[in-house]
Amino acid sequence: MPQKATFYHAGCPVCVDAEQRLAHALDPTAWAVEIVHLGEQPQRIGEAEAAGVASVPALVLAGSAYHINFGAALAELKGGA
Amino acid sequence: MPQKATFYHAGCPVCVDAEQRLAHALDPTAWAVEIVHLGEQPQRIGEAEAAGVASVPALVLAGSAYHINFGAALAELKGGA
Repeated sequence: MPQKATFYHAGCPVCVDAEQRLAHALDPTAWAVEIVHLGEQPQRIGEAEAAGVASVPALVLAGSAYHINFGAALAELKGGA
Repeated sequence: MPQKATFYHAGCPVCVDAEQRLAHALDPTAWAVEIVHLGEQPQRIGEAEAAGVASVPALVLAGSAYHINFGAALAELKGGA
């Protein structure tokens, strides 16, 4: 049974690249990857924060947050449109 | 034929965690992962820099560098023991 992986992003160029490259590079037999666009789903920002996400793009693997390069701070998304 | 992935680290706690979690989460049918400890193999720091690595831990996937959280700057490793 695959473990849960969540890739949080905000549509920025750094995010899109990381999604295409890294989020899709995970072993599909081990990880069930969900892609979450926090700009379109701002109601999930709290969940990302609770997992330790401070900026996007970030990948949460079985509850641990891994920030991948830097696209935007979560704080900016909160204030954004 | 798997593409080349290189995980650069320096033995720091952040590095070890990222190695165990992320470097080993890649799809083994798509990626051949090499683990490089830059503290033990300082002669490979130049190669990491050329790939765009500025800090460790970092994962280079088919030539593109992805910094994962932050353990240590490459510059610190150059000056180190």
